[in-house]
Amino acid sequence: MNRVQWSRLDAGARAALLARPAEMNAPDVSEQVAAILADVRERGDRAVRDYTQRFDGIVLNEPRVSVADMDEASATLPAALRTAIEEAAARIEAFHRAGMAADYALDTAPGVRCERMLRPIARVGLYVPAGSAPLPSTALMLGIPARLAGCEEVVVCTPPRADGRADPAVLHAARVCGIDRVYRIGGVQAIAAMARGTASVPACDKLFGPGNGWVTEAKRQVSSGAGAVGIDMPAGPSEVLVIADAGANPGFVAADLLSQAEHGPDSQVILLSDDDAMLDAVDAQVRAQLAQLPRAGIARQALACSHLVRVASLDEAFEISNRYAPEHLILALRDARAWLPRVRRAGSVFLGDWAPEALGDYCSGTNHVLPTSGAARYCSGVNVSSFQVAITVQEVSAEGLAQVGPCAAELASAEGLEAHRRAVTLRLEAAA
Amino acid sequence: MNRVQWSRLDAGARAALLARPAEMNAPDVSEQVAAILADVRERGDRAVRDYTQRFDGIVLNEPRVSVADMDEASATLPAALRTAIEEAAARIEAFHRAGMAADYALDTAPGVRCERMLRPIARVGLYVPAGSAPLPSTALMLGIPARLAGCEEVVVCTPPRADGRADPAVLHAARVCGIDRVYRIGGVQAIAAMARGTASVPACDKLFGPGNGWVTEAKRQVSSGAGAVGIDMPAGPSEVLVIADAGANPGFVAADLLSQAEHGPDSQVILLSDDDAMLDAVDAQVRAQLAQLPRAGIARQALACSHLVRVASLDEAFEISNRYAPEHLILALRDARAWLPRVRRAGSVFLGDWAPEALGDYCSGTNHVLPTSGAARYCSGVNVSSFQVAITVQEVSAEGLAQVGPCAAELASAEGLEAHRRAVTLRLEAAA
Ligand SMILES: [Zn+2]
Ligand SMILES: [Zn+2]
Repeated sequence: MNRVQWSRLDAGARAALLARPAEMNAPDVSEQVAAILADVRERGDRAVRDYTQRFDGIVLNEPRVSVADMDEASATLPAALRTAIEEAAARIEAFHRAGMAADYALDTAPGVRCERMLRPIARVGLYVPAGSAPLPSTALMLGIPARLAGCEEVVVCTPPRADGRADPAVLHAARVCGIDRVYRIGGVQAIAAMARGTASVPACDKLFGPGNGWVTEAKRQVSSGAGAVGIDMPAGPSEVLVIADAGANPGFVAADLLSQAEHGPDSQVILLSDDDAMLDAVDAQVRAQLAQLPRAGIARQALACSHLVRVASLDEAFEISNRYAPEHLILALRDARAWLPRVRRAGSVFLGDWAPEALGDYCSGTNHVLPTSGAARYCSGVNVSSFQVAITVQEVSAEGLAQVGPCAAELASAEGLEAHRRAVTLRLEAAA
Repeated sequence: MNRVQWSRLDAGARAALLARPAEMNAPDVSEQVAAILADVRERGDRAVRDYTQRFDGIVLNEPRVSVADMDEASATLPAALRTAIEEAAARIEAFHRAGMAADYALDTAPGVRCERMLRPIARVGLYVPAGSAPLPSTALMLGIPARLAGCEEVVVCTPPRADGRADPAVLHAARVCGIDRVYRIGGVQAIAAMARGTASVPACDKLFGPGNGWVTEAKRQVSSGAGAVGIDMPAGPSEVLVIADAGANPGFVAADLLSQAEHGPDSQVILLSDDDAMLDAVDAQVRAQLAQLPRAGIARQALACSHLVRVASLDEAFEISNRYAPEHLILALRDARAWLPRVRRAGSVFLGDWAPEALGDYCSGTNHVLPTSGAARYCSGVNVSSFQVAITVQEVSAEGLAQVGPCAAELASAEGLEAHRRAVTLRLEAAA
C-alpha cells in the first residue's frame, strides 16, 4: 500500500490521492449500451434472449423463474444459510421500519389545510448482480424497503448461472421479501427490460441496485431524456475509509481494509492514522492476511492503488474524511462515539473495534446500497423513502382563500402572472 | 382547446394525448451547453463575465450583490409586496418544518445499536430564474427548506436585469431566507459556476431550481460523470391536470387552466370531466377570460396543444390522471376529500373549488418546485430532506458482535467473500 504523510503533500497531490478512478464511460461503452437499450426497446423479449445468449452463453426462452422453482430453491438451500438470510432480513426490516416517514397535515391558516401524503412507487425494478458471486444480501437490501413502502409490483432481475438457473440464495432472499417476480436476466439487457418493459417484464418506474460499469452506464442512460425512469443513485466502485488511533487493533483494521479490497480490483481503500506504529503494524498485517485469501488477486490490485496516510491529528483525519465523503467510514478510535459528531459526509459509519464493515454489508440492519464516488456529499443510502413519493395536498375553504388569497395575488402581480392573480381574485369576488 | 372523448381514442391516440413535448436536447444545445461548462471550468469568473455580456447584454465585473445593495432592495420594495413575501415565507416555513424527519436509533440486537443521523448538505446552489419575470417565490421555495436543513453555505444565482441589477423582490426573498450570497448570473453560466466553482462562486454539492431548456440541460450534464454534483430533479414544462364534475364552477376552472397556460408556450394543460356541459362552459370561459390577459399570446400557444377530455366516469378520470402523473392536480369535485385516496401519482393536489393552483405557487405553504414530465411516478417535490443527507451508523460491542457476527459470516461465505468472513471471525476469536 502506498504510504504518505498528509502534511508533506501539496494541494495537487492531496486532490490526486482523494480522486476516484475515472469512470468507465468510454465512448464505445456508452454507444454499445445505447445500442442494446434501443434493441430491447424495439425487439423486446427476443432481444433480451439474444443478449443472454451472447453475454451469459445460454439460451433462455422463459427467463422468469417459476414460483415452483423458487420454492424448490428455498427447500434445497442449506439450513444455516436459510436461517442467516431470515435473521438478516428481520434486523434489516426492524431498522428500516423504524425510520419510515409518516403522512402529516397542518393548518397553515384558518381554512387552509396542507398535507403530505406518502405513496409507494407503483412498479420498481431491483437489479441483483452475480458477477464474481451472487449477492442474496442485495436482494434483501432492496426487497425489504420495497415491501415496507408497499410497492405493488416488485421485479427482480439477476444474471443466470452457467447452468441457466438463478442462484438459490438470491431466490430465497427474494421470497423472504415477498417477491415472486424474478427474471434470470443480467447486465444491460436487464436494465433495458425493466426500464422500457417487454412482453414479459413490466416497465418499472424506478430501478435500484449496484452493478458493473455497463449496468451503471445503462442506468444512467435510462434515467435521462424522454421516457426517463428513476434510479436509486449514481454508482461507482465500493470504498472504505478507516480512521485508526494508536489504540486500534492492527489485525482488525487490516481485515477491514482487505474485506473492502476483495470487492473488486477498483475498490477504494484509505487508512488515516495519527500514529506511525499503527500504520506499520497494519501494513504488516495486510501482507500476512492477504496471503490466506482466495480473492487475493483481486485484493492485491485494489491495494496497489490504496493509501496509508499519516495525519498530524485526528482533527485532520476528519477534515480529510469529510472532503472524501466515503461510502463506508470506520472509526477505529477510543471513544468512537465522541468523535461521531465530526462526521458530516459518509454513507455508513462503523464505530469502534467490534464493528467490521461486513456487518453493515449483511445484517446489522442498515442498508448496504450506499453512495460512492463522493456522492455522499449530496445523496443518502437506500431506505424506505427511496421507494416512496411524497405528494402534497392543499384543501382550502372560502374562508381559507380569504385568508391567504390576497398574499398570492400580490406575489402573482409582482411576477407578472396576471392569470394567476385572477384565478385568486375571481374566487375572492365570488365568495364575497 | 382540443376536445376529445376518451372512450373513442385508441391506445395510440391516448398515448399521444398524454405524451409530454419532446425535450429540447437537440445535439447542438447539448454541445453548446457542454462548451460553456468547459469554458467556465477553465476560465472561471472571466468566462462567466463573457457569457453574461453575450447573453444578458451587460458587463458585470463583480456579479455578487453586496449586502448593502440587498438592504437597499428590501427598503425600496413596496410595503405590500414586502409583507406578502414575509407572510408567504412564514407559511412555507411552518409547513416544511412540520415535515422534517428526525434522527433515530434502534438496537437491532443486544449490543448492536443502529442509527440514522441527518446532516445538512454543506453547500447548495439555488437557481432563481427571471425569464419573462423574476420569481421571488422560487427564492422562498428553495431558500426556506435550505435554511431549515441547516445548510452552511447557500448560494443564489439569478439573471441580471437590463440595468445590471438583481430584481429587488428576489433579493428581499433571499434575505428573508437568511441568504447573503447572491450573484447576478443566469443561464448555463450560473449552473457552471455553482457546479464547478470559480474564484468568486463556491463549488456547490447540489443544485436546485427550475429553468429553461438550456438550464435544464446544464443541470443534467453537471449531475453525471466525473465531478458530478447533485440536482433536485429532472425538469420540464409546467403542467396542470384538472378533474371537474358537473357541479364545478366553469369560471374558476377556466382561470386555473389559464394560469397554467400563461407559464409558458410549452405549458401542459388537461381538463377531464364526465359532463359535456361543463366542458362546453369551461371552453367558453377560457375564450372570454383569455382576451383580458396580458400574456394572452403565451397562453394561446399553450392552449393550442391542450385538451378538454370527456371521460365516461370519474373513475376513468383518476385512471388517466395516475397514468399521466401531473405536476399539479386540481380536483374540482363535490366532496373532493373523498376522492383524494384515488390519487397515486401527482406533484401537488388542490382540493375543491376554493384552492386555485396559484395558492400552491405562492403561499399555501407547500413547495412549488415539483416533478414534471411524469417524474411524479418516482420523485417528490422539494422539501427539507432534499437539502439533507441521511448517514447510517452502527455501534457494536463485543457482545453485539457475538450476537450478529455468525449471521454475517454465513452470508459472506455464501457470497464467496472470505475477507469479509474473516473480518468477523477474527474479532469473534479475539473476543472469546
Ligand atoms: Zn463490503
Ligand atoms: Zn402556476
